[in-house]
Parts: sequence; C-alpha cells; structure tokens
Amino acid sequence: VRVAVDVMGGDRAPGEILKGCWQAAELLSGDDMVHLVGDGAIINDALSTNPVPANKLKHYNVVATTQIIEMDDSPVESIRAKPDSSIAVMCRMVSKGEADAVISAGNTGACVAASQLRMRLLPGVARPGIAVVLPTFHGPVVVCDVGAQVIAKPKYLQQFALMASAYSHDLFNIETPRVALLSIGEEDAKGTGTVKEARKLLRDEPLINFIGNIEGKDVFKGTCDVIVCDGFVGNILLKFTEGLSEGIFQTMAAEMEQESAEVFEKFKGVAKRIWARHDWQEHGGAPLLGVGGICMICHGRSEAKAIKNAIRVAKQLVNSGVNAKITARIAQSIQVTDE
Amino acid sequence: VRVAVDVMGGDRAPGEILKGCWQAAELLSGDDMVHLVGDGAIINDALSTNPVPANKLKHYNVVATTQIIEMDDSPVESIRAKPDSSIAVMCRMVSKGEADAVISAGNTGACVAASQLRMRLLPGVARPGIAVVLPTFHGPVVVCDVGAQVIAKPKYLQQFALMASAYSHDLFNIETPRVALLSIGEEDAKGTGTVKEARKLLRDEPLINFIGNIEGKDVFKGTCDVIVCDGFVGNILLKFTEGLSEGIFQTMAAEMEQESAEVFEKFKGVAKRIWARHDWQEHGGAPLLGVGGICMICHGRSEAKAIKNAIRVAKQLVNSGVNAKITARIAQSIQVTDE
Repeated sequence: VRVAVDVMGGDRAPGEILKGCWQAAELLSGDDMVHLVGDGAIINDALSTNPVPANKLKHYNVVATTQIIEMDDSPVESIRAKPDSSIAVMCRMVSKGEADAVISAGNTGACVAASQLRMRLLPGVARPGIAVVLPTFHGPVVVCDVGAQVIAKPKYLQQFALMASAYSHDLFNIETPRVALLSIGEEDAKGTGTVKEARKLLRDEPLINFIGNIEGKDVFKGTCDVIVCDGFVGNILLKFTEGLSEGIFQTMAAEMEQESAEVFEKFKGVAKRIWARHDWQEHGGAPLLGVGGICMICHGRSEAKAIKNAIRVAKQLVNSGVNAKITARIAQSIQVTDE
Repeated sequence: VRVAVDVMGGDRAPGEILKGCWQAAELLSGDDMVHLVGDGAIINDALSTNPVPANKLKHYNVVATTQIIEMDDSPVESIRAKPDSSIAVMCRMVSKGEADAVISAGNTGACVAASQLRMRLLPGVARPGIAVVLPTFHGPVVVCDVGAQVIAKPKYLQQFALMASAYSHDLFNIETPRVALLSIGEEDAKGTGTVKEARKLLRDEPLINFIGNIEGKDVFKGTCDVIVCDGFVGNILLKFTEGLSEGIFQTMAAEMEQESAEVFEKFKGVAKRIWARHDWQEHGGAPLLGVGGICMICHGRSEAKAIKNAIRVAKQLVNSGVNAKITARIAQSIQVTDE
C-alpha cells in the first residue's frame, strides 16, 4: 500500500507529522511505501536524523513540493492557485495511480476539494461525506458527515448511511452496523423536511440496518454503530464533544485538587485512563467516503500518534477494498433522485 | 403576577409539579396567583393535604380541566382536538387577560402551538424561539432557538438574537449581552447560506452586541452570553449536552469506585457539587420568546425544584417587562424581508 502523507499540514507540522511517519515504520512491509510530501529540505534533513531502522528506510520516499495551503485559505481557490502544494500534489498522485491513500491534518476544505477534483467520486455517489469515529462509553460510533456537505439532500444521507456502514464493517468488523438518523425526536413527524424524507429512504433500504431516529442525548448510549447527519450538524456536534469533555474534566480536576493531594493524584490517574480509552488519536483520522481513493482527514491538532494510526487505518481500508464495497452497495441500493 | 401551571404535563406530573407549586409559596405575595390547571379532583385532594402555610393559600386557585395532551400527541392537532386540555386552557387564560404567564413540562410542540395560536406573536416578530439557559463552567449562556423552528430564515436568527439579548439582560442583569452565531468556523465563508446571511444581519445590527461565529468547541469557554441557532441544531445540542455529561460522570464514577471506597466518596461529593452548580433545574424552564405573554417550557423530567424556579423566573420576566423590551427592539431593528 502506498500512502502519501502531507508533511506540511496541521498545527504541529512538520515535526509531529514526521514523527508519526517514523512511528509507523513497524506497520510497513512488502511493497508498502510512505510518500513524504512537502518541503524537500525539511524532510531530507529529518530523514537523515530519523530513528527509523535501516531496513525500513526503503519504505519512505520524499516528494518535494514548493507551496503550502494555509489553514484559512479558501479550499477551492487554493487548490487551483497552489498546484504544487502538498495537498494538491498528493491527490494528483492518487489520480495518476502513484498512491492509494492520502493523509492530511491540514486545511480540511482543501482536502475535500482536491480529493473530489482529482480522485473523482466513486460511480453513483452524489456527494462525499467525512466519517469520524466518536469514541463513546459503549464503543466507537461512526458519524457521517462531519463537514464535507453543510447541506444534505435526502439522497446524500441515504448514501452516507451506505458508505459509513461499509466503513464501520471494514474498520470494526461489525457484520451489519446499526444505523441511526440524527434528529430531534424519535417520531416520524420530527425533524426538518430533509430528515423526514431521509428517514423514509433509510427505512426502505434493505442494505441499511436502520434502527430509526436518534436524539442528541442517546448518541452516547451504545444503541447504534453509525449516525447519519448533514455536515453542519455533524461538525458542530464533533467540536462540541471536544469542548464539553475538556470542560468537564478541567472543572473536575480543579475541584479534586482542592480535596487533597492524594485524591487529586488518584483522579488524575483515572482521568488519564478514561481519556486514553476515548482518545480520538487512536483512530487516526476521518476518511472522506465516496471518492476514488482513500483520503484520511486528520484533526488539526494531530500528534504523531494520530498520524501513525491514520497510516494504519489507510492501509486497512485499502486492503479491505472498502471502495469496491461502497461502489457495489451504491449500485445495488434503491436509486433516488437528487432532489 | 398570575401564573398558570400545567399540573398534568411532564414525566413526573402531577406529583412533582404540585410539589413545585407548594415550594413556590415563599415567592408569592400581594396579588400573586398560581392557577393550578388540570384534573380538579387530583388538585383539590393535593390542596387539602398540602404543606403550604395558611396565609399563602389565597395565592392558589384551581382551574379544573378534563382533557390531557399526551407527550406524543401531534402539537397542532391536539390543541384543536382537546380544547379543555390544561395547555389549551392556560393559553386561553393569557389571551383573555386572566393570566400573565404559563408553565408546562408537557408536550413542547403543543405549548408552542397553543401559545402562538392564543397569545399571538408580539408585533413585528416573525417566529417565536425557545431560549434555554445552558449552565457552562464560565456562567450561564442563553441558547435560542432549541426547538420551536426546525428551519430558520436569516431574519428569524436576527430576531432570536434581539429577543434572547433582552432575556439575558433581564434574567442575569447583563447590560449588553455578547451574542454569537453557532457555525462550523469563525470565517465569513463558513456555514450554510442561511448562517452566512444571518451573520451579515447580526453584524450590521446596532442593537446586537455581535462577537461573531462560534464553533461547537467554544460553547463552554465563556466567550459569549447568547448563542443563536436554528431549533434543529439547538435541540440536538441541548440533548447532546445532557447525554454526554451524564455519560462522562457515570464512566468516571465507575472508575473511581474501583480505586477505593474512600476515593469514591470524595468523588461523589465533588460530582454532586459540580452537578448542583450546573443544574438546569435552577433555571426552571425555557421561555418561548416572541409570543404575547410569558410561556415557560420545562424539561419533561422536571422535578419540583424546576417548577418552583420556573414560577420565580416567570414572575421576574413579567415584572421586568421583557416583552415590551422585545417589541421595542424589534421595532427599532433593521427591518429585513422574511426570505
């Protein structure tokens, strides 16, 4: 498997990104190749001092680029204006058959735009969706979409369900993932027109194991494996989870510290354990489902661990043939119009 | 102030609702009146055995009704089909000038429908919005709307900001509440078309202290006093907060218990303290802003404490004249079309 990694993208690039690539050495064998895409001088310098065993060095290749897409660059414009940026170059490598997967912790919008432009959509797919793994107290839940489409038509939600089910199946080995539609009540009559229409599509689709609507309070109750929503709601929810969790742990830490030094130590150990068990970095990144290649979008705050895991998941998805499964499911599904 | 309370609505009705009404006795003086609306036999029976001091009994009045709107009844239909339900009767009392405020922990949709139908909208208001107080680690934040309008036009969001500012001002004595628009990024270009349009309206409106977009992760960071969003997103977020908070505390409790009995006791104390400090029941309920009366919508799980506090807040809002302020602000604001 050939994975192109964006060395220039993310809050901690290039240091943590490269570190993650070196940590991934143990995952690499056979024809595996990690293409390090970015500033040639920086990468070569890091390569010369890196801690990778000599027998693994053949799995790394430098692809020097001269431009950088910043976090606040306009997605579509930057792809056109910066053709030699790491993101643009990586996606072109997939389109030319030189790489199977791309990984970036950089500008999400640019990754989505470049993937769609270069890798094209899989046959029958109307819009791609970002599928993130939310580590809940009852196991991982895949949420799709979390930001590729700010507005979703019913058809997109139907396809997000099909694609995310294939992903959940291949990633977690769940035979028939339980799919829920995020809404404001369990009843048919609740939600926007789009949600109500999507509910019918999901219910009627034999390829989807649809369990019904899910409310915000039930997301963490372990009742489903996949949650489908539009990218606006999904993105708000994802970032909200981060903010609220951190807030609760901080508030609790401050209180525990006032109890006693000993209690505080115990608390810190417990918090660390819980945090580790629900660490988003364990899942690496979120694939953009529906494009003709594997595109792993990582959190801007990704550290080495996230990059290493993104490489692991990208390999897994290429090897499992998730895109062939998505294409087959989309072709077999009930065909609905785009409106 | 005359407050009509729905004795029949909510998961813990009528017991906890009535208990809340009795607990509110200490808040009642002068011409204050609590109209107990619901099953006459139940209420009279409870009145005869209630723990309210004799000198406060004159502040209670029984309004017997014969119908009940269930939690899953269709809002608009049930209001028409059950004219003698507590919710329908309460809203009619306001329209006839017999009550200033209504409080219900029952069917939210029916409360919204009945309030809109009977109390009418305040002059200039396009749509009402439910404004809930989210108890964050940096103080209370008012979120509007959390469920009255599943789809919001830019104009509605502008008016939610004006109305929720007036509410935040009157409830928390904040001179010029900082208003944020919930979106998926801080930049102008982020979000749905509606959000981008609303952003312009909020920025241009001199009556609104607009601080810009806010992302999900920043909701709990104390950067704003009011958050504006459509009712679909707001409702999901609200219920999500509940589910996630409970999940974290439960997970942590299970871990702490394994540490030692002593540590677990300490933790329980701390958790209880934090929970109490962020107890939504302290804020009673969420007003439906924009209707010609005070309508307090309480959580279905409300206990006595929430009902008592809803009575307190209803009194406060009637006395502060929040609706006159909302009407004035709407009249003075930049007038935009409904599209």
